[in-house]
Amino acid sequence: MNQQILLKSRPIGKPTSGNFEIVVAPVVLLKDGELLVKARYVSVDPYMRGRMSDAKSYAPPFELGKAIEGGVVAEVTESRHPNFVVGDAVFAPMKWQELQTIAADKVTKLVKNTTPLSYYLGILGMPGLTAYFGLLEIGKPVAGETLVISGAAGAVGTVVGQIARIKGCRVVGITGSDNKKAFLQNELKFDEVINYRSTKNMEDAIAKACPNGVDIYYDNVGGEISDAVFTNINKYARIIICGQISLYNNTKMPVGPRPQAIILKKSALIQGFIVSNYAARFPEGVMQLTQWLNEGKLTYQETIIKGFDKLPEAFIGLFEGRNTGKMLVEIE
Amino acid sequence: MNQQILLKSRPIGKPTSGNFEIVVAPVVLLKDGELLVKARYVSVDPYMRGRMSDAKSYAPPFELGKAIEGGVVAEVTESRHPNFVVGDAVFAPMKWQELQTIAADKVTKLVKNTTPLSYYLGILGMPGLTAYFGLLEIGKPVAGETLVISGAAGAVGTVVGQIARIKGCRVVGITGSDNKKAFLQNELKFDEVINYRSTKNMEDAIAKACPNGVDIYYDNVGGEISDAVFTNINKYARIIICGQISLYNNTKMPVGPRPQAIILKKSALIQGFIVSNYAARFPEGVMQLTQWLNEGKLTYQETIIKGFDKLPEAFIGLFEGRNTGKMLVEIE
Repeated sequence: MNQQILLKSRPIGKPTSGNFEIVVAPVVLLKDGELLVKARYVSVDPYMRGRMSDAKSYAPPFELGKAIEGGVVAEVTESRHPNFVVGDAVFAPMKWQELQTIAADKVTKLVKNTTPLSYYLGILGMPGLTAYFGLLEIGKPVAGETLVISGAAGAVGTVVGQIARIKGCRVVGITGSDNKKAFLQNELKFDEVINYRSTKNMEDAIAKACPNGVDIYYDNVGGEISDAVFTNINKYARIIICGQISLYNNTKMPVGPRPQAIILKKSALIQGFIVSNYAARFPEGVMQLTQWLNEGKLTYQETIIKGFDKLPEAFIGLFEGRNTGKMLVEIE
Repeated sequence: MNQQILLKSRPIGKPTSGNFEIVVAPVVLLKDGELLVKARYVSVDPYMRGRMSDAKSYAPPFELGKAIEGGVVAEVTESRHPNFVVGDAVFAPMKWQELQTIAADKVTKLVKNTTPLSYYLGILGMPGLTAYFGLLEIGKPVAGETLVISGAAGAVGTVVGQIARIKGCRVVGITGSDNKKAFLQNELKFDEVINYRSTKNMEDAIAKACPNGVDIYYDNVGGEISDAVFTNINKYARIIICGQISLYNNTKMPVGPRPQAIILKKSALIQGFIVSNYAARFPEGVMQLTQWLNEGKLTYQETIIKGFDKLPEAFIGLFEGRNTGKMLVEIE
């Protein structure tokens, strides 16, 4: 039986399992130019929360009663296109569905080598490229500068911190558990890590961890954690707005201290982006990240949950900090 | 009698005349390498409010009981330096004092030609250069784009809007009176002007004045006016934080809607600056502004108040919107 997960209702606040429904997918005949593919790794990403609302954003909202869509690595099980054969691995934005048909020109064929296929959902995919272009193009790190990352143990944050270390920066991570803190310090060699859940005064903790102030802030989280970073920025600081996961489930417009006065005082910059702004340069990013992986300069961490029916749970877990590194679901 | 104005007490909220005191300046002997100068035009600028507080900022606080300092155009009345003669006009940051001594190497000698000397406090001085570098270096205007300016009738805003028109932008000003609105539309040829005091829904008014959205926002004001602009920005919008005059007199940390989510959605940029960041390029800016003035492409407006003792009143007037264009005090 071919299962599909659809959006049953739009989440209000934090998503719950009740917002999703597992149904049997309709049978669709394979046409010329199409592939029948079987999902192997399905990505869950914070940005998908935005598509579950009906507010206008950079991606259109998911439709109620239709399948959720996101990044999927799949295996070709039948091909009606000359460039693909059974067993090929492909990546594309696809439905949350075990088996599906897709136009061959919508997928990227993945080279099977020593790189695990799941990496194309993480360090060699959207999150890795998000880290790479956001940090290098907006943050413009210089050796000796101090970088702070919120959501440091997530799919993007883990890569940002390691690239910043390659570039010679002092790297300070903010995360939400002692396990993650230990991982970032011991495995990824971050210089300092702050567990915000066990820290009373974040402003002081950041000041202590950054004796020379904050030159770059890579923000995945927003809200009060960002407020505490802002008071510690240096002249010409660059603040990269990559995500605001702490606010995605807000039901009201979030309010807080206005950042403009400190931006003015410090001649600082805040810039938002989405990775597709850099689509023309993705090959450059994948090549560089692959090289660093092969040279052992990048360590990659995944939180893999098994079973197609676990997709809603994995997605909800993103907002509970249940992942270290990239969260994804593997389907046997 | 040689008068001086000192800071008697730090303003809490809006400055009042009680924060200032006029005293008789002590007599100081002129030394070699120094000039004795008589103030002719004294600048009052919003940034000076920051120096009246004791909070750390980009310029050190004024000291209580000491003379206020700001931009002054003065005339040399005695010279102990070979490069200066009596009657020379000079510009420097100086005390609010009728007659004072100053080291000759601290002043800029002004060329006496057809340009009124007061212009060196405005369009050819700090406010003009602030407009020029902030707009061109951060805003990067492209012909056909839409620019919104808050504080549009001020010393900086009037220049920003005219440069943006030279660059081919649609220019929308936000100001606080119908007189200023008429001036901006009729004299400076702004495309649209919104009087925020008589407008109920600023968000709608901006949307109507900017049918193609806002590409550049030159912000002198901050607060709720900025909130209304933010909801109208386009992808890749540039927001230049030049001033936040609506907040300078706040006694509490101003709070408001967090701008990060829209910055993220729109891949937008917010950048603060102070004009001294571009000090190395001031000659380029003065040359270009002078050329545009001579070609009749820039119209320049001043609000001149006469009398040394009117300095506190002129300064306080900045926060009441009493000026159109550059506010300054002339001393006979």
